[in-house]
Amino acid sequence: MRDQLLQGIVDLDRESRLPLSEQIYRQVCIAVRDGVLPAGRRLPSSRKLASSLGVSRNTVNTAYELLKSETVVDIRTGAAPVIANRQPLDGMTNSLSAGETVIKTLSARGNSLCVNPREKLRPVDGGILEPGVPAFDLFPRETWARSLRRVSRLMSQDDVFYRHVAGLPGLRELLARYLAEERGVKAVPEQVLVTSSTQASLALLAQCFADPGETAFIEEPGYLGARGAFANADLNVLPLPVDNEGAIPPTGNQGPTPQLIYLTPSHQYPLGFAMPLARRLAFIELARTSGAFILEDDYDSEFLFSGRPVASLQGLAAGPEVIYLGTFAKTMLPGIRVAYMVVPANLSEQLSQAIRNMGMMASAPSQAALADFMAAGHYRSHLRKIRLAYQERGLALCNALRARLGNRMDVFLPAGGIQLVARFKNNEDDQHIARLLQQRGVGVSALSATYLQRPETGLIIGFSGADAPTIRRGVDEISAVLSQ
Amino acid sequence: MRDQLLQGIVDLDRESRLPLSEQIYRQVCIAVRDGVLPAGRRLPSSRKLASSLGVSRNTVNTAYELLKSETVVDIRTGAAPVIANRQPLDGMTNSLSAGETVIKTLSARGNSLCVNPREKLRPVDGGILEPGVPAFDLFPRETWARSLRRVSRLMSQDDVFYRHVAGLPGLRELLARYLAEERGVKAVPEQVLVTSSTQASLALLAQCFADPGETAFIEEPGYLGARGAFANADLNVLPLPVDNEGAIPPTGNQGPTPQLIYLTPSHQYPLGFAMPLARRLAFIELARTSGAFILEDDYDSEFLFSGRPVASLQGLAAGPEVIYLGTFAKTMLPGIRVAYMVVPANLSEQLSQAIRNMGMMASAPSQAALADFMAAGHYRSHLRKIRLAYQERGLALCNALRARLGNRMDVFLPAGGIQLVARFKNNEDDQHIARLLQQRGVGVSALSATYLQRPETGLIIGFSGADAPTIRRGVDEISAVLSQ
Repeated sequence: MRDQLLQGIVDLDRESRLPLSEQIYRQVCIAVRDGVLPAGRRLPSSRKLASSLGVSRNTVNTAYELLKSETVVDIRTGAAPVIANRQPLDGMTNSLSAGETVIKTLSARGNSLCVNPREKLRPVDGGILEPGVPAFDLFPRETWARSLRRVSRLMSQDDVFYRHVAGLPGLRELLARYLAEERGVKAVPEQVLVTSSTQASLALLAQCFADPGETAFIEEPGYLGARGAFANADLNVLPLPVDNEGAIPPTGNQGPTPQLIYLTPSHQYPLGFAMPLARRLAFIELARTSGAFILEDDYDSEFLFSGRPVASLQGLAAGPEVIYLGTFAKTMLPGIRVAYMVVPANLSEQLSQAIRNMGMMASAPSQAALADFMAAGHYRSHLRKIRLAYQERGLALCNALRARLGNRMDVFLPAGGIQLVARFKNNEDDQHIARLLQQRGVGVSALSATYLQRPETGLIIGFSGADAPTIRRGVDEISAVLSQ
Repeated sequence: MRDQLLQGIVDLDRESRLPLSEQIYRQVCIAVRDGVLPAGRRLPSSRKLASSLGVSRNTVNTAYELLKSETVVDIRTGAAPVIANRQPLDGMTNSLSAGETVIKTLSARGNSLCVNPREKLRPVDGGILEPGVPAFDLFPRETWARSLRRVSRLMSQDDVFYRHVAGLPGLRELLARYLAEERGVKAVPEQVLVTSSTQASLALLAQCFADPGETAFIEEPGYLGARGAFANADLNVLPLPVDNEGAIPPTGNQGPTPQLIYLTPSHQYPLGFAMPLARRLAFIELARTSGAFILEDDYDSEFLFSGRPVASLQGLAAGPEVIYLGTFAKTMLPGIRVAYMVVPANLSEQLSQAIRNMGMMASAPSQAALADFMAAGHYRSHLRKIRLAYQERGLALCNALRARLGNRMDVFLPAGGIQLVARFKNNEDDQHIARLLQQRGVGVSALSATYLQRPETGLIIGFSGADAPTIRRGVDEISAVLSQ
């Protein structure tokens, strides 16, 4: 009898590392679930099944024991095992045939959360001249690898369990000192909260400081990540137009009161302008009188080429108006997944709990290695090195674009950073052009995607990795696409 | 004249690494903002100020240049600099005095997001016999450090930029194979999504699969992290009672339809029971007919002592009813911050975007090192080693507690894992007792905190790090506190 030997039911895969006994067990379970083996059906003895399958009797016995312990089969001494009566499958066979399968779908908020925000900006990642990423060729991988190894050998239990939700104390201390010295940030180490990325910080702050339907101001054009974080938190996102002094503070008392004001005052993203003092003070005042928080995203102030960057808004503000956001994604590597925010002292403990509750704690090896790397002075010397390289590369790219394509595009001389903007004089379809360039291996972004309302068109072009041959090739490709 | 030399306004700190020129710049800005230096006020010449402050004239000139570039001061050749007219401070001085400062507060959802979910469970972290953490003494730190160093030297640009939002392909492939072999999970590598923690996975799934006000079932008692993630996503959280076969499937059609059903079928948290087949099938059926997803949290099935663990619910389900959750926090170290979920193939791409949008990508060095560590066979041998050690430690702790405190507590023999539950026979105040033990350096948790409604009282006691002296000390302390 076929069924007695479980032919067509048990089919062993000897290549699998799943033990044969477990394969037998699982396949019988499924047959029972599917009604192929009904209650009362006798199973072959372990001797017969073993010989039919070509396995040891022990293997079959182990499977039968598992089935017995799950009450799928009854085994009485001396008798063949039988599929147990209805107890273990109570009601199951009926509902299996009767019930409709309900299609599983995303929730309404899931539908917005699962959208690729860069779809319009840049359909594919990668390619030369990609904006938003540091130079991979200049990364000091040997020094970094040694830091990682050293800290992993020396780590303490406190470093790697759940103790330090807001970051390793050593890193927070180094960051507080570094930010005070370099950016005029005023903070004790307890105000520095480490997270796994700026995107995580923004998602957290959007939820912690605004309820659904409340208002967030963003820059126009501006950073898509911030726009996405606020939209995903179900906020009303309003654009602040940008001129060559950065975002323009709203005047008068019309319009909704913001809960959050997202700004990039050191180096406006993507246009690159610095915000002068008057506007800084106006925004601080707006925050002070409206109860909003300014989220100051200082994403790349480390790379301003000419002179020292203006001190941070956070340091300029007298009170708790500003939350400062920084990241190691541009100065080191995105994959390290360490960012930080500087928050008002009285909120530090509460926001740390939110980091825990949202699962946004940063990797301990990355954090410890960064602290090691900073304490040894490698971080400052790495920054000096890449600042010079970026300046050289940025100017070279700017000059090459102006010389070759100055009739088609206005190329902004970068004040710093890792990318520049070239605006089309004739408002060409930048998303189409960016797609064509992507297909040719040039990873530039369409400027229009960074606007919420009235887009200008152009390209956002990264220069961090742009050595001379890369620039030549990139400008050739852009020129070729524009001549089509 | 005092003001001419900016006494009381500029006060240099020569210990600071902030350049003296920037200190002058910043302090003048603040004085202008605060109205201490009104428009039209003459500033000292750079020569006079330099001599008064004891700095070089160059330093003062740099500061003045910064102030001029910000249009805070006017400098005409040959004349002393003056505080600029109202342009840079338009309207600022008025509003500075007039406006009320609005107190900044958390949003309504921020108030729930910023709560420490373990407040009741265990007020302080740390101490011996802490549950929920692996053995630190058995971690192979040298091998791990070598893996980290190796991968950091070999990393490619794709590994460390923004390409692989759902995890490094090598790790996803190894995980798919490992989970198929060890847990009967059915998945291609594209279904394995890597995140920074199970808490992050839960926060993400709660938002992606349920809208505010919809229902999630959790186990009672159960895992606080899941309860918190669902509550923070504004879901209606309903408890499923647990007996010694795990969670009891709801019968009949009363009550709300769930969107999410959170289960720990391999080893119920915290009580430790395994769910038999009938219940597994009933839950799969419930998911199938209700459109809910089961979130199968297989947090510690690697450590079941007796026999092989029952295969996963995910593998048992015929369709997309189950999302499987796993983590390296218990098998390796929490601080590595790498977890994973196995999702239906048709949702993999969308959920990957949600990982990006919530900033939940895991650290690239941690991921690459894990892949290296697994591929070399270190992971399986590490698991074998700690499984044996945990079994020994768990039994020793269980026996010691029963021998010494069997009259006061029912101690569950652990079927595996890293912690056990001891229930008080006389329903004592476990939160008070846990607090007293914490003060004595014993990091146990109160069982009652894991219940949503009708709590039992007891202690959750970790044994992963419990060598013989630790057990003696811990049992002594528990005994001493119970005798008070």
